[in-house]
Amino acid sequence: MMVTVKGVTLAVGCLVFFSGFVIVSAYLSGWWPGSDEGEGEGGGSRTSVSETIDDFIIREVNHDNIRNNLRHLTLKPHVAGTPAELETAKWVEETWRAQGMDEVHQVAYQVLLSYPEKDTPNLVRILNDSGAAVWTSPGRQKPLYAPEEASPDVLPDFNAYSAPGSVAGDVVYAHFGREEDFKALENLGVEVKGRIVMARYGEVFRGNIAATAEGRGAVGVLLYPDPQQFSPLGEEEVYPSTVYLPGSGVPVGTVFTHDGDPLTLLYPAVDSAYRMSESKANLPRIPIQPISYDDARHILRHMGGELVPSGWQGGLNVTYRLGPGLAETGWKVTMEVLTHNVPTTIYDVVSVIRGSEEPDRYVILGNHRDAWYLGGLDPSSSTAALLELSRVLNVLRNETGWQPRRSVVLCSWGAEEYGLVGSMEWSEQFHKQLMARTTAYLNVDMAIDGNYTLRAQSTPLLYHLLFEAAAKIPNPDPEEIAAGRPTVYDTWTLRRPDTDHPGRPSVAILGSGSDYKAFQHNLGVPSLDVRYTHGPGLYTQPLYHTLYETFAAADELYDRGFNFQAAVTQMWAVMAVNLADAQLLPFSLVEYGDFVTVAFDQLVEHYGDLISSRNITLDYFCAAVTEFSQAARNFTNNIININSTNPLAVRRVNDQMMMVERAMIDPHGLPGRPDYNHVVMVPSISNIYASTAFAGLTDALDGITDLDPEQQEERWDQFSQHLAAVTYYVTTAGKVLSDDLW
Amino acid sequence: MMVTVKGVTLAVGCLVFFSGFVIVSAYLSGWWPGSDEGEGEGGGSRTSVSETIDDFIIREVNHDNIRNNLRHLTLKPHVAGTPAELETAKWVEETWRAQGMDEVHQVAYQVLLSYPEKDTPNLVRILNDSGAAVWTSPGRQKPLYAPEEASPDVLPDFNAYSAPGSVAGDVVYAHFGREEDFKALENLGVEVKGRIVMARYGEVFRGNIAATAEGRGAVGVLLYPDPQQFSPLGEEEVYPSTVYLPGSGVPVGTVFTHDGDPLTLLYPAVDSAYRMSESKANLPRIPIQPISYDDARHILRHMGGELVPSGWQGGLNVTYRLGPGLAETGWKVTMEVLTHNVPTTIYDVVSVIRGSEEPDRYVILGNHRDAWYLGGLDPSSSTAALLELSRVLNVLRNETGWQPRRSVVLCSWGAEEYGLVGSMEWSEQFHKQLMARTTAYLNVDMAIDGNYTLRAQSTPLLYHLLFEAAAKIPNPDPEEIAAGRPTVYDTWTLRRPDTDHPGRPSVAILGSGSDYKAFQHNLGVPSLDVRYTHGPGLYTQPLYHTLYETFAAADELYDRGFNFQAAVTQMWAVMAVNLADAQLLPFSLVEYGDFVTVAFDQLVEHYGDLISSRNITLDYFCAAVTEFSQAARNFTNNIININSTNPLAVRRVNDQMMMVERAMIDPHGLPGRPDYNHVVMVPSISNIYASTAFAGLTDALDGITDLDPEQQEERWDQFSQHLAAVTYYVTTAGKVLSDDLW
Repeated sequence: MMVTVKGVTLAVGCLVFFSGFVIVSAYLSGWWPGSDEGEGEGGGSRTSVSETIDDFIIREVNHDNIRNNLRHLTLKPHVAGTPAELETAKWVEETWRAQGMDEVHQVAYQVLLSYPEKDTPNLVRILNDSGAAVWTSPGRQKPLYAPEEASPDVLPDFNAYSAPGSVAGDVVYAHFGREEDFKALENLGVEVKGRIVMARYGEVFRGNIAATAEGRGAVGVLLYPDPQQFSPLGEEEVYPSTVYLPGSGVPVGTVFTHDGDPLTLLYPAVDSAYRMSESKANLPRIPIQPISYDDARHILRHMGGELVPSGWQGGLNVTYRLGPGLAETGWKVTMEVLTHNVPTTIYDVVSVIRGSEEPDRYVILGNHRDAWYLGGLDPSSSTAALLELSRVLNVLRNETGWQPRRSVVLCSWGAEEYGLVGSMEWSEQFHKQLMARTTAYLNVDMAIDGNYTLRAQSTPLLYHLLFEAAAKIPNPDPEEIAAGRPTVYDTWTLRRPDTDHPGRPSVAILGSGSDYKAFQHNLGVPSLDVRYTHGPGLYTQPLYHTLYETFAAADELYDRGFNFQAAVTQMWAVMAVNLADAQLLPFSLVEYGDFVTVAFDQLVEHYGDLISSRNITLDYFCAAVTEFSQAARNFTNNIININSTNPLAVRRVNDQMMMVERAMIDPHGLPGRPDYNHVVMVPSISNIYASTAFAGLTDALDGITDLDPEQQEERWDQFSQHLAAVTYYVTTAGKVLSDDLW
Repeated sequence: MMVTVKGVTLAVGCLVFFSGFVIVSAYLSGWWPGSDEGEGEGGGSRTSVSETIDDFIIREVNHDNIRNNLRHLTLKPHVAGTPAELETAKWVEETWRAQGMDEVHQVAYQVLLSYPEKDTPNLVRILNDSGAAVWTSPGRQKPLYAPEEASPDVLPDFNAYSAPGSVAGDVVYAHFGREEDFKALENLGVEVKGRIVMARYGEVFRGNIAATAEGRGAVGVLLYPDPQQFSPLGEEEVYPSTVYLPGSGVPVGTVFTHDGDPLTLLYPAVDSAYRMSESKANLPRIPIQPISYDDARHILRHMGGELVPSGWQGGLNVTYRLGPGLAETGWKVTMEVLTHNVPTTIYDVVSVIRGSEEPDRYVILGNHRDAWYLGGLDPSSSTAALLELSRVLNVLRNETGWQPRRSVVLCSWGAEEYGLVGSMEWSEQFHKQLMARTTAYLNVDMAIDGNYTLRAQSTPLLYHLLFEAAAKIPNPDPEEIAAGRPTVYDTWTLRRPDTDHPGRPSVAILGSGSDYKAFQHNLGVPSLDVRYTHGPGLYTQPLYHTLYETFAAADELYDRGFNFQAAVTQMWAVMAVNLADAQLLPFSLVEYGDFVTVAFDQLVEHYGDLISSRNITLDYFCAAVTEFSQAARNFTNNIININSTNPLAVRRVNDQMMMVERAMIDPHGLPGRPDYNHVVMVPSISNIYASTAFAGLTDALDGITDLDPEQQEERWDQFSQHLAAVTYYVTTAGKVLSDDLW
């Protein structure tokens, strides 16, 4: 099919061996295996074709549109399940209809969410020995700058799924609330049981802090952002003059440690669903409440007990003590938490551009729509980008006649902030179809949470897709261009270098904490997440999940001119179109082999002696890794021989490539974790934000020598069992790269 | 591609809308929806093409070859894991290599099997009050006719996976050992606890009898074949002069109630597997031993206690009493059981004819190879057929240039008798590939266990495939031909009529108990099982699993001339070739919709009042059934519009049809039964040989009103939970019949 775009002739959807885009830039950059064999010269002329589509996209992305989208989305708080959030769903739906998407669906689920009392904030108090309050927390964040901060729809501060309740007790300061912090307290003789734990945000997922505290018998948890991490320039250099967190800022968020609707685990929350009773759900049983560092200061100022260990002192100008309890005899801290669970309707909005040749193969793009407050960065910067992306694809279609070979599916998720609820329920509802048909899932949780460099988390299968796309996107930072780094890829490589692969940027593993979780970890769909991010030294952008994450923060502090949000939009669109159009899926199989090999070596390095001390062999696992790696290499070398004019032959090898990630899915779940299925990339139990390879194995071994003999035996048994499963699935991942079983 | 067979020109593998075979015979017989619309006239000329391939197959199947195959296979006992069984594996492998199969693989698994002591039989005794044996069972069956019955490799009588042990106690007669029989005993005040249960074969799977007895506290189980079922013409009219069971015959078999290797549940028993300890496996904990009816007579003659209830008296010329214990004071029955578990290597043999256009789509044919004794019927009649079938396909290929569009995979399973071990392990090892790629699984456990009529168990998706094929196969019974019934289909329809569909034979649901289990119940691969079988009134063929199931039984008693085994071979081959060659898969979707609708109606009929008494709605389930049924009808009506010259369009709709059965698979397993996944067709918990639709639901309700209130609540909770899952998966089965999600 030949079409003309602004005077340039394009061949669209023709049966070429590889989309010229992939082949040629791969050859130029030397990424594609075989590039040193001098093949692929024919690609030169083809390239201009696809590159022109990329150029069209890059040219068409409009900064003002993204800005306008963001402005519209951030006028009101849009917490999941509220009328304001439903309004955003309707607006996304209408926008997609107006743009001409082939299908637009609003998908509702009945789920269990959690809210504070709107008019009666959760309160923390210090009571003196006669029971009078000497200090009471404000319970709400103070409007500072943007008018919408004063919206009547702003909710009081809360952690979703906290149990309601009033508790009074002695406070213990638990540093970052990690497993090792609680162990340190134990070693110092500071008991947590029956007490209120106060811990700092900044190292692990807040739900894990709360769950660890609850597991050790705490009766309440207070979470606060220490200025050491959140306002490192001092308490004056904060929003709205900088991006740092003011003293009144309270980062909120869910403390549910699982994903999806808590009452319909593993199944979709449709009308016909079975809902377990709340008492059976894995929900927190104690009150958990976030506070500001101004609040924390009040408590720390009174804390009794020993001085904190070296390194535990934070950035507040008080001497940090561990407790338990306050210095003044008879003084107590109380928490009055009214946060409670409510059955609520949430909405995903999903639209489709139908594939012309393979409508039953999906390239899925997703971003959530719900925000704790105004969502200036998280997530509305990405929703703004997604709506511009869809506009551009429809313009491309209208102006050039382009149709993607595969279907492009755009998803605007609801209730991500509560635990990825919208994407989990949808992926559960369409589990079978998505598992069979989805080529890849491209998530952008927020388009920007900084303007320093691109940051990507990804399956190794999509590394090259990422690199290729980033190398096409003009650098949004004029200073970087002036410094001789004209593309996103250049700055990324400089600022996040991969030390193992000089000249290449690093890509992180996919943990959990955003909507790719269902796709990567449950369905085995190759997934990635990209954003423009802040520099090193920050755990997160300092305004994250606070009232001050406003349109102004994006517009005035992070991205004046919307260059960075435009760059992410461009990159997202270029990746999507490449996946949708390439005759052969642009999956970097060899990278996956290398990844698994390195991960195996690291396992041996860290745990090899321990494992061999139990006479457990890693030989089978080693062989599986080697076989998978070799199969990936052979497949990649041989794919050149495929008859690209035979549609069934092409479909077959694409199906094989699609199966690689699926092969790593254990339908029975990980040990003790039925809601995680991917045996290679797994968030660690103790911090679902972080992910390491083979965490099912390393979790079993972590701290094993500290356990009593019986527990050790159980853990070793679990290790051996999971080792066999991992070995089997990695072996299978190599074997699926063939028409045959052998 | 045009090829010539004996002067007839064939078009092979051309892209026709439907294989002419299916379309035309469907139109003629009125089965294909739309046949009354007068479309498909063009099929007439196409038909002769494919019919000629069918005719070629029918003509080429050679009775003498099947006989010779069976003679070779039945020379020695070939119990799984023994050297004689390995010899059969090698012979099958060599035969397939010599025939020219594209690939032949021997696949070994390390599994836990069970054997008696070869030289020290398990014994049952009656001891008098001074402890002297007044009777001792022979422990072995007496050779009666065929020389090979006296083979030194014949094992003593045993039930596989019985616990070893010696027990002494009072015997209780438990009729057929069904749940209701044990309840009747309870109501009659006859306690089973601490006693030896003696029950008759003949109504439920022997493993269920033993498990129920063990669950009620029995210390041992004796199983015997009552002449009422096994020698209804009297104890003289038996093998070798008739097919009925002699007094010395002992039907043996496994009492494991799960499938596959007991130590590697849900995962393949490959070298790298994790093996649980035997103490954690779901194996019987008490001795279980089969005896003959001659043996049973010795015990029944001495039985004390009350007379048995009406209907419990069997065919032995003694007055049946319930016990407990023998009439003579101080007399006891003892069991000395040496049966023990042994890690053993088993072998599957798998061969392939590679598909020319879709080598990554498999049509799988399977039969087990291991036998308890000589396997004259079970399973060697089918192994003999399979080897003739493969010869015929290779001749077809050599003489005509025919190549199947899809790959044809032939499987000779090991250790089926122990609990489908070979097929379970293989399906676990290649779970991902088989689930993604298998179009159908065609099992023939034994080609014949009678010569009365064809008998089929099948998913509704393959009903038409069955009917079409049976209608092509010449009737192997000359009397039936003379009576005006020229085809297998005709006799089948007469002797096993479907009362709901006059003019059509009935097809049973797939239970468990043969190698289709993994395919149908775990993978969601449409499966069937066919054989020629005995007339009504017999639970099984009377020589089943005894020493007397010999070559002579097949050759002289059941199938002189091997007409019936040839007919099954022809039918198996015709079904395989049709599935392998048809451009569009010949799946009868509308039948599945009808099946589910009828099953729903039956559920409402039997349990509707009970369910509504709990205010549980079946409305969602009803809607799911209706939607699925309607989707199947719409798909079938619309398939005529597909562009059959577009290979991707054809692949898409085939993939959709393949997904229907998968959609009914719950990866999380049924309630409390992780080894069963199909929510529509499920063997009932209390008898895995039998299957009803939605047994996960009916099992939850069966006997619920007899339970105490707390147990009732638990069951209702389980019912509600599973109802939601079934509703969801049936809904999904309709939705997968589309490129889209909606």
